[in-house]
Amino acid sequence: MLKIAIDAMGGDFGPEPIIEGLVAALKKNNNFSAIAVGKKDELLPLIPQIFLSRIEILDTNDVISMSDSATDALKRKESTIYKAIELVREGNADAVVSAGHSGASMSLATLRIGRIKGVNRPAIATLMPTSENQNTLVLDVGANVDSDAKNLFEFAVMGQVYAQYVLRLDEPIVGLLSNGEEDSKGNEVTKEAYKLLAKIPNFAGNVEGSDIFKGTVDVVVCDGFVGNILLKTAEGVADTIGKIIKKNLKRSLISIAGAVLMRKVFKNLKVRVDYAEYGGAPLLGVKAPVIIAHGKSNPKAIQNAIFQAINAASSNLDTIIEQRLAKYSNNQEIN
Amino acid sequence: MLKIAIDAMGGDFGPEPIIEGLVAALKKNNNFSAIAVGKKDELLPLIPQIFLSRIEILDTNDVISMSDSATDALKRKESTIYKAIELVREGNADAVVSAGHSGASMSLATLRIGRIKGVNRPAIATLMPTSENQNTLVLDVGANVDSDAKNLFEFAVMGQVYAQYVLRLDEPIVGLLSNGEEDSKGNEVTKEAYKLLAKIPNFAGNVEGSDIFKGTVDVVVCDGFVGNILLKTAEGVADTIGKIIKKNLKRSLISIAGAVLMRKVFKNLKVRVDYAEYGGAPLLGVKAPVIIAHGKSNPKAIQNAIFQAINAASSNLDTIIEQRLAKYSNNQEIN
Repeated sequence: MLKIAIDAMGGDFGPEPIIEGLVAALKKNNNFSAIAVGKKDELLPLIPQIFLSRIEILDTNDVISMSDSATDALKRKESTIYKAIELVREGNADAVVSAGHSGASMSLATLRIGRIKGVNRPAIATLMPTSENQNTLVLDVGANVDSDAKNLFEFAVMGQVYAQYVLRLDEPIVGLLSNGEEDSKGNEVTKEAYKLLAKIPNFAGNVEGSDIFKGTVDVVVCDGFVGNILLKTAEGVADTIGKIIKKNLKRSLISIAGAVLMRKVFKNLKVRVDYAEYGGAPLLGVKAPVIIAHGKSNPKAIQNAIFQAINAASSNLDTIIEQRLAKYSNNQEIN
Repeated sequence: MLKIAIDAMGGDFGPEPIIEGLVAALKKNNNFSAIAVGKKDELLPLIPQIFLSRIEILDTNDVISMSDSATDALKRKESTIYKAIELVREGNADAVVSAGHSGASMSLATLRIGRIKGVNRPAIATLMPTSENQNTLVLDVGANVDSDAKNLFEFAVMGQVYAQYVLRLDEPIVGLLSNGEEDSKGNEVTKEAYKLLAKIPNFAGNVEGSDIFKGTVDVVVCDGFVGNILLKTAEGVADTIGKIIKKNLKRSLISIAGAVLMRKVFKNLKVRVDYAEYGGAPLLGVKAPVIIAHGKSNPKAIQNAIFQAINAASSNLDTIIEQRLAKYSNNQEIN
C-alpha cells in the first residue's frame, strides 16, 4: 500500500484545508495511507476517528513561512517540510505533497532526495486548460531561470515521460515554446535546444504561446523565467476577463437576469480555468514524486495533489526518465 | 497639416479594409491628409469622390506578401511598404502605417528611416487591456530576441516617453517584467537591467505577468522573445475562454436566453480584449513614427492605427527620446 507524506502545516491557511483534503482523498481511494507532518495537538482534532488508522502523525512544531528564505530550509531540520521530505528520502513514504514554501520544498527535494541520474536541473510542470477538453503540460514554470539548451532537452524528456505514464497519454507530442512556429524562430538558447529536441520521438518543433491553449501539443517546454511569466499572464487574463464580466453585470438589471440564467456556464468556465483543479505541480527530475501545491490550496486542490502523488508513485518515473535520458544522449553521441 | 503615408496593399485582405479605414479616419479628423501607396487602378475606385483631394495615390505594383522573407525587403524597391517608408525618409510624409509584412516593415523602417541617436534596437510596443479601464504599454513584443540589459534600458525610456507624450499619461510608471516582484528575482539579463532602470524616474522595480492586466504600472519592459510569448499567451487565454463560453451556451436553451440578455456585456468584453481596437503597435526608436498594424486589420483597426500615427507625429518623440537617453546615460556615468 502506498504511503504519502504530507506537510500538514505549510499552506497559507494552516492545517484545516490540508487535513480536509487528505480525508477526502482517503474516502475516495482505499489504497493508500498517509503521514501528516505537523503539530500533533492541532492536527489530531481535525481527523475523523475512522481515519486515524490510515493517517499517522509525525509530530513537529517548526513551520517555514512564506516570508522565510529558501536558503534557510536546509538548516531547519525540525520543519514540517524538511521532515516530510526526509520520510521519502529514508524510504518511509513513497511521495510527498507540500503546499508550503515552494522554494524550500524544491531545494530540499533536490538536495535531500536527490536528482535522477542524467538530470542537471529538476523542473516544475503544470497543466494548462485548453478549449478541447484536454490539458497541456508546461514545464519549467519556475524552478529555473537561465536554463541552457541541455536543460530544456531534459525538461522535454521528463515532460514526455510524465505525460505518458502519469497523464496516460499515448505517444505524447512535445513542442518547444518560441516566438514563432518556423524552425528559424527563437532566441540563442531555444535554437540550440531545437537541435537537441529533434532527437526525441514525437517532437513537433516550435510552438507559440497560443498553442498551449489550443492543445496543439501535449507537452510544452520552456525556460523557468518564461514559464513563470506565461503562467502569471494566463492567470492575469482569466482574472481580468472575469472582473470585466462582473463589472458589466452590475451595470444592468437585464444582464443580472442573464447572468442568473448563465450561472451554470460560468461555473463550468471556472472549473476549466481554475488551476487549483489540477491540485499541484509535480517537481520532475528528483528520485521520488514531489507535488508542489499552491499555498492557497483548498481541500479539493489538496485532494487532487494527493491523487497526483499516488499516480506518480505508481509509475517508475525515475527509472524511465533515467533510461530515456541515457538512450537519447547516446543517440546524440552517435549522430 | 500632417501627412500620413499608408501601405494600402500589404494587409491580408487587400486594399478594401485599409482604404475604408483611411476614409473613416479622414471623416473624423480634418487635420491630416494621406498618401496611399499601391496599385492606382485598384485603389481609385475605393475612394469616395469627396476624399480624393485629401488622398494622394503613389502608384506601384509590387506587394511583399506574408510568405516572403523580410531580408528581401531592401531589394524590393518598388514594393508598397518600401515606397511608403521612403516617403517618410525623404520628408514627404510625417509618419507611416503598415498592415503588411511586419518583419519587412521593421527592417525597412530601421534601415531606411534610421534609429534615433542612442537607440541600439528599436522595439515594438503594444497596449494590453486591464480591468480598470486603462491600458498597459508593453515592449518589446517581438522586434528583438536576446535583448541585453542596455536594450531593456532603452525600451524603458522609449516606453515612458511614448506613454507620456502619445498616451498622455502624467509621469508614467515603468516596471521590469520578471518571475517575481522581489528585487532578487530575475534572470541574468533582467538583474543587470534592474540596475540600469533604477536610474529612471518612476521605476517601480520588478513586476509579474499578472501585473500587466491589473494595471499596476503604465509601462512594462521585457525582451522581445518573452514579449511575443506573453502576447500570444494572452490572446490564447482570451480566445479559449470565449470558446468555452460559446460551447457551453450551445448546450442549454436557458443559457441561450441568458446570453441574449447578456449580449451587451459580451460586446463590451470584446472591445476590451480585442487587441485590434488599439489599431496598431508603434515601432519605437526610429526617427519617425511607424505604426505596425495587424495583417488582419479591419477598417476600425486601420482608422485607429492612423490616429496613433497622427498622435505620434504631433509629438517630437525622436528628440525627447534622444535627450532622455543622453541624460540618463550621463547620470549613469557620474554615479
